[in-house]
Amino acid sequence: MFTGLSAFPLTPLNASGIDEKAFLNILKRLTDAKVDSLGVLGSTGSYAYFTREQRKRIATLAVQHADNIPVMVSIGAMSTDEVLRLADDAQQAGASALLLPALSYQKLSDEEVFGLYQDVTRQVSLPICIYDNPGTTHVVFSDALHARIATLPNIASIKIPGVPADIAAATQRVKSLRAQLPASVTIGVSGDAFAGPGLIAGCDLWYSVCGGLFPRTAKALADAAMNEDFAAVAAQAQRLDPLWALFTQHGGSLRVIAAAAGILGLTEMNCLPRPLRSLAAADVAEIQKVIAKLDLA
Amino acid sequence: MFTGLSAFPLTPLNASGIDEKAFLNILKRLTDAKVDSLGVLGSTGSYAYFTREQRKRIATLAVQHADNIPVMVSIGAMSTDEVLRLADDAQQAGASALLLPALSYQKLSDEEVFGLYQDVTRQVSLPICIYDNPGTTHVVFSDALHARIATLPNIASIKIPGVPADIAAATQRVKSLRAQLPASVTIGVSGDAFAGPGLIAGCDLWYSVCGGLFPRTAKALADAAMNEDFAAVAAQAQRLDPLWALFTQHGGSLRVIAAAAGILGLTEMNCLPRPLRSLAAADVAEIQKVIAKLDLA
Repeated sequence: MFTGLSAFPLTPLNASGIDEKAFLNILKRLTDAKVDSLGVLGSTGSYAYFTREQRKRIATLAVQHADNIPVMVSIGAMSTDEVLRLADDAQQAGASALLLPALSYQKLSDEEVFGLYQDVTRQVSLPICIYDNPGTTHVVFSDALHARIATLPNIASIKIPGVPADIAAATQRVKSLRAQLPASVTIGVSGDAFAGPGLIAGCDLWYSVCGGLFPRTAKALADAAMNEDFAAVAAQAQRLDPLWALFTQHGGSLRVIAAAAGILGLTEMNCLPRPLRSLAAADVAEIQKVIAKLDLA
Repeated sequence: MFTGLSAFPLTPLNASGIDEKAFLNILKRLTDAKVDSLGVLGSTGSYAYFTREQRKRIATLAVQHADNIPVMVSIGAMSTDEVLRLADDAQQAGASALLLPALSYQKLSDEEVFGLYQDVTRQVSLPICIYDNPGTTHVVFSDALHARIATLPNIASIKIPGVPADIAAATQRVKSLRAQLPASVTIGVSGDAFAGPGLIAGCDLWYSVCGGLFPRTAKALADAAMNEDFAAVAAQAQRLDPLWALFTQHGGSLRVIAAAAGILGLTEMNCLPRPLRSLAAADVAEIQKVIAKLDLA
């Protein structure tokens, strides 16, 4: 399952809590487009803002409605005890894989980060993807740390936070990391603006925010990469530059994708967990223009 | 209650979970020393690593054993909904005040941070202390943001993350912030190495990690400041330099204070929540020497 397009859907809210109908609206688009895997309760799925019970419910719903597409569930939490409880819940919900970040409140040493993965892999039988995204978790992985964690049982993939924009530098980056990993561990690019260079540079898959709402667009790009049609990858990724520019402008992809989901009528316009706030009307109007111009809907 | 010494105790663990006996051991030292207030479940109290139920239990225990010293409880969490539930729990437990950080997973705008404080102050009737500590929360407060939040009802104090080491610069810093705040809002220094300059510079109180384990030492320093005996403050703070050096050496105060609590026999030697790990034996031996040399026990 750790190849091609892994689509990361929102977990939308309404005034009463999680908007299950809206979540299933979004999920249906992803299963219809036959994405290669689903990454629910990722950063885009706002896992960090939900209770254990809410997370179990979303994992269960996702598996029930995944149309046999494998579901990866994030089990990130500050404490190892909570991570282990979330792992149990995800397994019981029928998840096919677990996405595991290390989160920093007290700054973690490499030994502590390794210890977290060790404690979890000792208890869990599902494949695990290492979640490396310092922008949200505030934990930085060196390649040496990735290599050490990748020797643990069940480590199946690494979700890296991006690659250099320059293709030669990106290729060197992916090659260098891959050389330090067991052959069974795949490398997936995230940070949608890096999808083009990441896939051209040899990443095995795209952990995609765009793919969580615009799966046909993202699937075409990932499919081109899987077919090694790198000219098509470059052209399609470049065509999406106005979307990546919106992500940069709004401090990341989440608020833009949440606005887009509202524009498409899939969710309410305010679907983010507080303290996060939805974008202003003028920003939403601009996003609507980009969606139309890029024919994303 | 927002004056003098606010002591921040550990919440120690053992193999079964929270070590209530050890927590009460520590609390007894603080009530015996008649600290001015207790700050339970602060960063030193590892609030970020506990469940809602654990936090309610610790808040309840603290109030029951506080010997009428006012108890402030941290209600920090990623989502506003959880913060509001924790606020209810702390109020029901009998807390006298709430300590409220903003936490960053998705990076928060100033508007979102203000919105959090607005949502909480609308629902809560207890005094609130703003928790400003970018090293753990990854949220940076400008003075303008502090000033805006301080206009909300029930904002009683700001816990600032430190001041410049130079007394003139520290004095300017505290004066400048104070000029932007209502007169009713006190300023407390934290980051124990900054206690001396912070109190000399005019901070109203010391939010103290040292005071959560070595309350007599910390209370003497805070009392000297309250009596405006700034020569004594400077001398006592300087005497503690070897302790501050240990905090720097070990990436913060928590692991050092946890080791010290073990050395004193108040807690088990491994009393931190995983993924956090206790310090190595050689580090513990060095901490033991500093405790003896400074006569802290």
